[in-house]
Amino acid sequence: MMERGFYREKTGHKIERDRDMISFANDYSEGAAPEVLAALAKINFEQNTGYGEDKYSAEARALIREVIAAENADVHFIVGGTQTNLIMIAAALRPHEAVICVESGHVNVHETGAIEAVGHKLLPLASPDGKLRAEQVDKLVYDHVHDGAFEHMAKPKFIYISNTTELGTVYTKAEITALRQVADKWNLYLYVDGARLGSALTSTVSDLNFEDYPKLCDAFSIGGTKNGMLFGEALVIMNDALKEDFRYIQKQKGGMLAKGWLLGLQFKVFFENDLYLPYAGKANEMAAKLADGFTKLGLCLAQEAVSNQLFVYLPLGLHKTLQKSFVYEVQNREEERVLVRFCTSWATTEEELEAVLKACSEAQAE
Amino acid sequence: MMERGFYREKTGHKIERDRDMISFANDYSEGAAPEVLAALAKINFEQNTGYGEDKYSAEARALIREVIAAENADVHFIVGGTQTNLIMIAAALRPHEAVICVESGHVNVHETGAIEAVGHKLLPLASPDGKLRAEQVDKLVYDHVHDGAFEHMAKPKFIYISNTTELGTVYTKAEITALRQVADKWNLYLYVDGARLGSALTSTVSDLNFEDYPKLCDAFSIGGTKNGMLFGEALVIMNDALKEDFRYIQKQKGGMLAKGWLLGLQFKVFFENDLYLPYAGKANEMAAKLADGFTKLGLCLAQEAVSNQLFVYLPLGLHKTLQKSFVYEVQNREEERVLVRFCTSWATTEEELEAVLKACSEAQAE
Amino acid sequence: MMERGFYREKTGHKIERDRDMISFANDYSEGAAPEVLAALAKINFEQNTGYGEDKYSAEARALIREVIAAENADVHFIVGGTQTNLIMIAAALRPHEAVICVESGHVNVHETGAIEAVGHKLLPLASPDGKLRAEQVDKLVYDHVHDGAFEHMAKPKFIYISNTTELGTVYTKAEITALRQVADKWNLYLYVDGARLGSALTSTVSDLNFEDYPKLCDAFSIGGTKNGMLFGEALVIMNDALKEDFRYIQKQKGGMLAKGWLLGLQFKVFFENDLYLPYAGKANEMAAKLADGFTKLGLCLAQEAVSNQLFVYLPLGLHKTLQKSFVYEVQNREEERVLVRFCTSWATTEEELEAVLKACSEAQAE
Amino acid sequence: MMERGFYREKTGHKIERDRDMISFANDYSEGAAPEVLAALAKINFEQNTGYGEDKYSAEARALIREVIAAENADVHFIVGGTQTNLIMIAAALRPHEAVICVESGHVNVHETGAIEAVGHKLLPLASPDGKLRAEQVDKLVYDHVHDGAFEHMAKPKFIYISNTTELGTVYTKAEITALRQVADKWNLYLYVDGARLGSALTSTVSDLNFEDYPKLCDAFSIGGTKNGMLFGEALVIMNDALKEDFRYIQKQKGGMLAKGWLLGLQFKVFFENDLYLPYAGKANEMAAKLADGFTKLGLCLAQEAVSNQLFVYLPLGLHKTLQKSFVYEVQNREEERVLVRFCTSWATTEEELEAVLKACSEAQAE
Repeated sequence: MMERGFYREKTGHKIERDRDMISFANDYSEGAAPEVLAALAKINFEQNTGYGEDKYSAEARALIREVIAAENADVHFIVGGTQTNLIMIAAALRPHEAVICVESGHVNVHETGAIEAVGHKLLPLASPDGKLRAEQVDKLVYDHVHDGAFEHMAKPKFIYISNTTELGTVYTKAEITALRQVADKWNLYLYVDGARLGSALTSTVSDLNFEDYPKLCDAFSIGGTKNGMLFGEALVIMNDALKEDFRYIQKQKGGMLAKGWLLGLQFKVFFENDLYLPYAGKANEMAAKLADGFTKLGLCLAQEAVSNQLFVYLPLGLHKTLQKSFVYEVQNREEERVLVRFCTSWATTEEELEAVLKACSEAQAE
Repeated sequence: MMERGFYREKTGHKIERDRDMISFANDYSEGAAPEVLAALAKINFEQNTGYGEDKYSAEARALIREVIAAENADVHFIVGGTQTNLIMIAAALRPHEAVICVESGHVNVHETGAIEAVGHKLLPLASPDGKLRAEQVDKLVYDHVHDGAFEHMAKPKFIYISNTTELGTVYTKAEITALRQVADKWNLYLYVDGARLGSALTSTVSDLNFEDYPKLCDAFSIGGTKNGMLFGEALVIMNDALKEDFRYIQKQKGGMLAKGWLLGLQFKVFFENDLYLPYAGKANEMAAKLADGFTKLGLCLAQEAVSNQLFVYLPLGLHKTLQKSFVYEVQNREEERVLVRFCTSWATTEEELEAVLKACSEAQAE
Repeated sequence: MMERGFYREKTGHKIERDRDMISFANDYSEGAAPEVLAALAKINFEQNTGYGEDKYSAEARALIREVIAAENADVHFIVGGTQTNLIMIAAALRPHEAVICVESGHVNVHETGAIEAVGHKLLPLASPDGKLRAEQVDKLVYDHVHDGAFEHMAKPKFIYISNTTELGTVYTKAEITALRQVADKWNLYLYVDGARLGSALTSTVSDLNFEDYPKLCDAFSIGGTKNGMLFGEALVIMNDALKEDFRYIQKQKGGMLAKGWLLGLQFKVFFENDLYLPYAGKANEMAAKLADGFTKLGLCLAQEAVSNQLFVYLPLGLHKTLQKSFVYEVQNREEERVLVRFCTSWATTEEELEAVLKACSEAQAE
Repeated sequence: MMERGFYREKTGHKIERDRDMISFANDYSEGAAPEVLAALAKINFEQNTGYGEDKYSAEARALIREVIAAENADVHFIVGGTQTNLIMIAAALRPHEAVICVESGHVNVHETGAIEAVGHKLLPLASPDGKLRAEQVDKLVYDHVHDGAFEHMAKPKFIYISNTTELGTVYTKAEITALRQVADKWNLYLYVDGARLGSALTSTVSDLNFEDYPKLCDAFSIGGTKNGMLFGEALVIMNDALKEDFRYIQKQKGGMLAKGWLLGLQFKVFFENDLYLPYAGKANEMAAKLADGFTKLGLCLAQEAVSNQLFVYLPLGLHKTLQKSFVYEVQNREEERVLVRFCTSWATTEEELEAVLKACSEAQAE
C-alpha cells in the first residue's frame, strides 16, 4: 500500500488562480498538466499522420504495454469516457447480449442511455457501496440459464465495473479475481472502466498494480481526462476475441480523433515521465487531508476517504455558507443535513484545502 | 363488476382432446375459436389487398372504434405482442427518451431486450404486485428534472403498463386515472399493453370499460393471441402525435403481415359477434373455479384470483405428483413448497378443472 | 429442366371466385392451399407448446432437412420475409459489417430501411436484370481492402441475393457457384432470400435443386407466403457461425410466433405431401401461358417469362381498358406505353388467363 | 468574389519543419494555429464548468451568432466531423426517415456506416462533381410519394450536402437556394456539413457569405479541425424543430467533451480575432498557386482548383519520383497516369509549394 507523500515531488507545480469561487466539483475542471502543454507546443508544426497511426501514439502504446507488462495488449486512444464505454461494448456484443453492472454504474445512470442506444440491455444490480460482487453475478447468470424462457430474456455476457467506483470505493485484488472467476465460469467478458484508474491504483486500500489488470480483465481503460490530461482514455484490450476490427467500430461511433497524435502524445508524456501515478496519488492525498480536516471539525464522513472522492455530511447551515464560496456536488438532501461530494484532483492546492477548512471552522464558530 | 356465469352461453363449444398431459401453461396453447376458423375457410379463395389495406381490416377497425367509442382512433393489426410493444415505442420516442415500467414488466423481462434493441432505455421500478403507481412515476420524473446532470441521463417519456399485469393483478380506474394525471403533469405518454386486456375488462375487480381506455391512454393494445385468435393484437393509437407515419415503422420492424386480412378478419369476427369479452370472461371464471377448488383443498393462493392467472403454493410432494400429468409454470422454488402459475383460457374445460382438482385431492389422501 | 405440365395433377383444386376485379397484383392475394386449412382445423383444439418448440415444427424441420439433404441444417420458422431478412442479418453481422446487394434488392428498396434500422449499411450494386455478379462483388471487396482508409468505410461481409430476383429472373447454378467462390475468397457470408424459391426451383431455366442450396449458401429461406401458405418462411442456416443464439435474436426482433406450430404445421403439410414444388410450378406455368397469349396478341415482353412474374409492355390505350377489370402493378410509365407486371400464383385459374387475354384481344379489335 | 492575397497578412507565421517528407495528404496534419495554443496555455489553470457550460463556449456562441447574423441560432461544439453528422441526424430523424446525399458524400463513403448505425438509410444519388442538384432531390421525393408502396420504402426527409464537397467543388448561392426550395416543397431538412466551410466561403467562385447559411439551412457546421484548430466543429441549428433536447443526444453518442471549454475557447480565439476566413483563404491561395505551377509544367488538372483540394493527373513516372519525397492521396489509377489529390492548409508554406514544383520540374527534365 502507498504511503502518503510519496507522489509530492513530481507534482509540485505552482498553481495560481484568479477567481471568486473554489471548485471541488470534479476532477476535470482544469486544463492539463504543464508537461502536456509543453509537449503540444513543441510538436505543433510537425506534420503527423492522422487517426492514431502516428509515431507518438505508437510510442505511447509501447510505453503502456511496458507499464502493464502485457506485450500482446491492443491499445486504442479515445477522447472521452462515455465514448470508450459505448465503443467497447458495441464492439464486444451481439444484439441479444447484455451488460451486468451495479445500479449506480456510470453506464446505467450518467450516459443518457448510450449503451441502450447501441442496442444493449443493462442488467443493473443493487450495491450500496457501488461495487459489484461475484456472487451477484453468479446468481444472475445461473437464474438466466435455468429459466425455462431464457431465449425470451437478454443474455448476460459482459461485466462492467469501474475502479474507482462512482461512490469513490476501490476494489481489492480478491474482489476482482472473484469476478474473473465467475466470468470464466459463465463465459462472460470482464471490463474495468478506469476513468479514475489512477486514483484506484494509488489508493491506500488498493493491492492492485498496473500489471494485475491485463491478467484479470478482458479489457480496461486508463483514464487521462480526470488525471491531468486535456482529454483522453487509453483502452486496453487483452482478449483476442475483442480485438478484431475494433478501429472500424471506433470510427463508426465517431470516436476516432482526426489529429489522433494529440491523444498519443499526452499518454507518451505521462508514461515516459512516470507522471500517471504521481498525479493521481496527489489527488488522493488531497482528499485524505481534507477528510482529516473535516473529521477534526467534527463533520461526519459517509465512508472512509480512500480515493479522490470524499463524501461528507454537512449540516444545512454550514452548507448554505460554504456554497457561497465553494463548488461541490450535492448527492442527497435530508431534513437537517446534506450529503455532498468533494472531489480533489492533480491540481488541487494546499491553499484550497486550507480555505475550505477555514471557512468551515468560521461558519461553525458563528 | 361482472357476475360469474355471464359469459357461459357464448362459449359453449364442445372441446375434445386426445393427449396424455393437460396444460395450464399459458393461454395460447390452442388454435383459435371455431368462429375464426370458419371465417378463414369461408373467404380463403377471395383475392384481397395485402398489408392491412383490405376490407376486413377496415371493418374490424370500424367495429373497434365503435366498441371503444372513439371515432378518431387509429387502429393497426400486428401479429404478436413483443412486436406491438417495440413498434409502438420505436414510433413514439426520440433516441434519448426512456420507458418507465415495473421491474416485472414484459418489456423489461421477457422480450430479450427488444426495447433496448430499438435504442431505448428502460427505467424499471420495484412493484411487489406488478402495478405501477403514479407516485413512483412522479418521483422518478421529478428527480430527473431536478438533477443537475439531467442531460447525462435518459429522459423519462413513456409510461408502459400492462393490464392485466404479469402477476395477474388488475388496475382500477382510479389507478390508471392517476397515471394519466402524472403523464399530463410531465408530458409523458401512457401506454397500456393489453395482451390480456380481455381478462382485465372482465375481471370481477375491474371498474374499467372499453370506452375508458381511449380517454385515459395515448395508446393501448387489444390482445387477440391470448384470447382465442390464432394470433393478433389490435394497437389503438389515440394521441395524434403518435399516429404519423406509424405504418412505415410497422413495416420497417417486420410487423406488417403480407396477408393482413388474416388479422382484420379475426378481429371482425370477434367484435361483430361480441365474442371478445365472453371468451376472456370464461377464462377468468375457470381460474376462479380452480381457485375455489384449491382453497377448499387447503392450498394457499399467493393472491386473490382476479384474472386468468392463478398463483398458488404447492407443497413439494404434491408438485412432484401433479407435474406428471399437468403442465404449469413454476415461478419460485422454496424449500418445502413451490409457487406455481395455473393459466386458464377460453378453451379450458370443466373436465380439466375437475381433473387437476381430483389429482390434488388424491395426492393429498395418499 | 422442368417440363411444363408436370405439376398440374397436384394442384387441381376447383377455385371459384365472386368479384368484379381479377387480380394479378401479386402472389399473396389469397388465403392458403386447402391442405393447409384442413390441417389447421384438424388440430385446432390440441394443446401445443409455444414459440416453435412443438412437434409439428420438429417434424417440418426434419422434412426440410431431408428434402434439402442437409442433416446439420438449423431450420427456423418466421412469419414474414422482411422479418426473416432483418433477423438473419442482425444475427450474422457486427455493427461495422455491411450487406452487398443489387440496387433493386428487396432489402434495399422495399423494407423501409429495415436493415439500416438494425444498424447495417447496404452496398447496392447496379444490375439491369436484378442478378448480382461475382465479379461485381469481387471488385467491391478488392477496392475496400486496398483503400488506404478502409477502416473509415463499412466492411463488406454479407452477400444478399434473392432467387427469383425482384425482376423475375432466375440464377443458374454457375452464377451462384461463382458467388460462393468469391464469398470464400473474401470470407463473406452468402445468403439467398427465397421468398420465391419455389418459383426459382421450378423455372424452366433453373438447373438448381433443393440440395444445391445448403452446399452453396451459408443460409437461405424457403418462402411459404407467396407459395400457398397463410404465411411463413423457413430460414435454413448451414454455417455454424450463424447458428449460435439465433432464437434470442428472433425473439428480440418480434419474430417468434407465440403459436409457432401454425408455422411448423404448414411446412409439414407442404413437404409431407410434396406440395411445395407443384404449387410453385403451377404459378410458373400460368405465367408462361399468359406470356404465350400476350406474345400471340403482338404484345412485347420486357424479358422472357421464366418465373411467375411476367413483365409486359402495354400500349396506353390497352392499359386504360384493362385496368378497369384487372389489377396489376405498373413498373414504369413511358409516353405511349407502360411496363407492367402480371404476377401469377398457385391459385391462378385458366379462366383468369382466358379472361385477361380475351379482354386484350377485344380491346385491340376496337 | 475574393481576391487572392487578401488573407496573407493575418497568417504570416514562420513555420519551420524538420523532416524528410512533405505532406499534402490532408488539411489536418498539423497541430493548431499559434493563437490557439497561446490561449490554451493562458487559461490552463483556471477552473471551468464542464460539458460546454463554460464562459468561453458562451462567448464563442455569441461571436458565431454575430458573424452569421442569426440571434436565434443554437450553437453546439463537437470534437469531430463524423460525430457532428451522426449526432445531428440522430437528433433530427424518426427511425423510418432517410438521408438524401450524393454517392461521394462523406456520410456515405467515409464514416464506416455511422448513419446506418444510428438506424437511418442513406439515399445516395450520382453526381460527377460531388454536388447534389435540386432536381435530383425533387425527382427522388416525387417518386417516393407517388409509389404505391411508399410505406415499404424509407421516407426521404433530410438533405445532406457538404461545402466544399468531397471533390473540392463549391456550391453557388443559386444552387443551395434551389435545394432550400425543394426542401420547403417536400418538408425536408437541409443540412450543410461545413467541415471545410472556410474553404468554401473564401473560394474565388463562392458567392455565399456566413450570413447566407442560417437563412438557407436548417442546420450547418463550421469546421475547425481542418482550418487550424486542434479539433472542433461548431454545429449551428436554426430550425426550432431540431433544437429540442439536442444536448441529450450529444451526450448519448459520446459527443459531449468533459472539458468543453477547450472547444469554446478555440472558436472564441478564431472569431474574436477574425482568423477563420484568413486561415481558410490562405489554404485556398496555396492550392491556386500550386495549380498555376502544375499547369505551367504542363500537368493536367482534373478540374479548376477552387478550394484547398487540388486534383491533378500525374504521369506514372513522375508519380513514382514524387512519392519518395511528398505525401498525397491517390484517387484513381489508370494505365499511364494517376489522379492524385494535393490538399493544402493554413500551415502550407511557400517553400513547400516551391519544393514540389521544383521536384516535378527536375523529374520532367530527366
